[in-house]
Amino acid sequence: MLKIVVDAMGGDNAPGEIVKGALAALDERKDFMLVFTGDENLVKAELSKYKYDASRVDVRHCTEVVNGDDIPTQAVRTKRDSSLVVGLKMLKEDENVGGFVSAGSTGALFAGGVMHVGRIKGVIRPALCPGIPNVRGTQTLLCDCGANAECKPAFLAQFGMMAAAYAGVLGVEAPRVGLLSNGTEEHKGDTLHREAFALLSELKGIRFVGNIEGRDIMCGDVDVAVSDGFSGNIALKSAEGCGKAVKSLLETEFRRSPGSKISYLFVRKKIGRLAAILDYARLGGTMFLGLKKVVVKSHGASMAKSITPSVVQAVDACSGGLIEKITEAFARAGVTETPDE
Amino acid sequence: MLKIVVDAMGGDNAPGEIVKGALAALDERKDFMLVFTGDENLVKAELSKYKYDASRVDVRHCTEVVNGDDIPTQAVRTKRDSSLVVGLKMLKEDENVGGFVSAGSTGALFAGGVMHVGRIKGVIRPALCPGIPNVRGTQTLLCDCGANAECKPAFLAQFGMMAAAYAGVLGVEAPRVGLLSNGTEEHKGDTLHREAFALLSELKGIRFVGNIEGRDIMCGDVDVAVSDGFSGNIALKSAEGCGKAVKSLLETEFRRSPGSKISYLFVRKKIGRLAAILDYARLGGTMFLGLKKVVVKSHGASMAKSITPSVVQAVDACSGGLIEKITEAFARAGVTETPDE
Repeated sequence: MLKIVVDAMGGDNAPGEIVKGALAALDERKDFMLVFTGDENLVKAELSKYKYDASRVDVRHCTEVVNGDDIPTQAVRTKRDSSLVVGLKMLKEDENVGGFVSAGSTGALFAGGVMHVGRIKGVIRPALCPGIPNVRGTQTLLCDCGANAECKPAFLAQFGMMAAAYAGVLGVEAPRVGLLSNGTEEHKGDTLHREAFALLSELKGIRFVGNIEGRDIMCGDVDVAVSDGFSGNIALKSAEGCGKAVKSLLETEFRRSPGSKISYLFVRKKIGRLAAILDYARLGGTMFLGLKKVVVKSHGASMAKSITPSVVQAVDACSGGLIEKITEAFARAGVTETPDE
Repeated sequence: MLKIVVDAMGGDNAPGEIVKGALAALDERKDFMLVFTGDENLVKAELSKYKYDASRVDVRHCTEVVNGDDIPTQAVRTKRDSSLVVGLKMLKEDENVGGFVSAGSTGALFAGGVMHVGRIKGVIRPALCPGIPNVRGTQTLLCDCGANAECKPAFLAQFGMMAAAYAGVLGVEAPRVGLLSNGTEEHKGDTLHREAFALLSELKGIRFVGNIEGRDIMCGDVDVAVSDGFSGNIALKSAEGCGKAVKSLLETEFRRSPGSKISYLFVRKKIGRLAAILDYARLGGTMFLGLKKVVVKSHGASMAKSITPSVVQAVDACSGGLIEKITEAFARAGVTETPDE
């Protein structure tokens, strides 16, 4: 049976919210079992609070925790008995383990993933690929959104291939792939993006629709937005910042006067529904693309309700054959060696 | 008396909305006069619809128009009798002309500005600097937001100097200047941004507060966000896209059922006030920084209500001494020659 490992100690609300959220995922999907990495006593104390099918849950005891203060590359070398490193090693060593979910340090998870799990053949740089909610009620995959601040054109072409494969796993047929630039015309962008445009245009097997702008991400006209990690991160966080600003302004408006408070009661449900559509947590965590197994990063501040979709996301990526689809895409494109860069 | 030239033929709604909006600015500020560039017959036909102080309005006839389809660098060379080029030349030739407002092609306005108006001594690259509304109800200046897709570290340091000077003109004391990056830590960013960080840290006379993220732009913790033109453009448009998405989703929610329509009546005013805060138009146009005179780009789709604040913005920048303040900042920093780059 497919095993999904969950880092019980990662994130601001570990282990309580992590254990609670992961257990809830057992009801969402039937075809997998959970293995928690972390302090056995702490994890079991949390587990004892809930009713669940004990045959589907296991705990792998470990003694260390990677913190946000740790230097990622150093932590994944030295904290070898941490819940994060032990989880990543299980991905490599146990063929039944398909995926790992952690709300811990993104940097450590990324560095550890490359070191302990390894890259799919041909992948130059793994990338972070969150789903951004869009007005169609679906999601736009943004890849890379921060793992690679410094990119070469070939990296971006690969981000497009990997994210398109992931979109396929999510059920999108012939996903539309756009390149995030500072204008839609072909000549827009700096040298990096103009060269990436040329590479993406030539790629077989993906449906490249040309340049897109920041405002196109949330309108849902593309399924994949390809980006260097620097500007992808800025796009993600700028949209997030605007969303936060709107929420704060709406609340201020509706709390302005007693009359407003009453009218707020009328609209609270509406705004709640809006917030639900725009809620990143609903879409799960950020998928790491390019590693030999499925790795999902849940937000550091994740509560149980964000952990559940992240675990479901890992299960679905495994059963949907994400790794195989990326491997095939690279083979189809004739990329079969992992270059030094 | 200070003259502000307005390109009567630029933008989607020229000349009707341009003339109407510019005339309204005469009531907002008393100490300037308007000169319209454009087809005299068309402009006068629009002018005849309104009552205004004729001693404060002039028309400079010209026969050509720069279109969105024109190649900017070519158009500003060949369309020498266009409303855009004639306006820019007046900036250079008439010392009473302090500023130019156009809703025409950004590229042409930029190329023409550099060619016909020229750069302030020391400025390597002029930049686009819009004000982004923030939750404090003020604005965060984002510079550059698209003129320079390919940047060097020294450009970014200059964008910070120029935008800080502009923030001063807008009344901000000791403006806080942040560098837009993919994380707040000093080591974040690609080589370009890490080197720009070092330059900004050493600059005398500006208050550099370090790296900021996309989400910080709209929270108002900085007055100036320094950015390369590529990722600045992506930040601007991603925030804009999220704002649009929220508006569209809110409208859908409130039109869902008859009951919703009624509750919408209760909240329409609130949402209108929110929209006003987030309304870029209210803040005027995008200021061009680094040219020897004030140039303001109003949105191509500008209606009269967006033209009015753009003209006011040009007047205020002139009377606030924007050009002098930038010149002084460069002299203070010891930059007195315009480098070839």
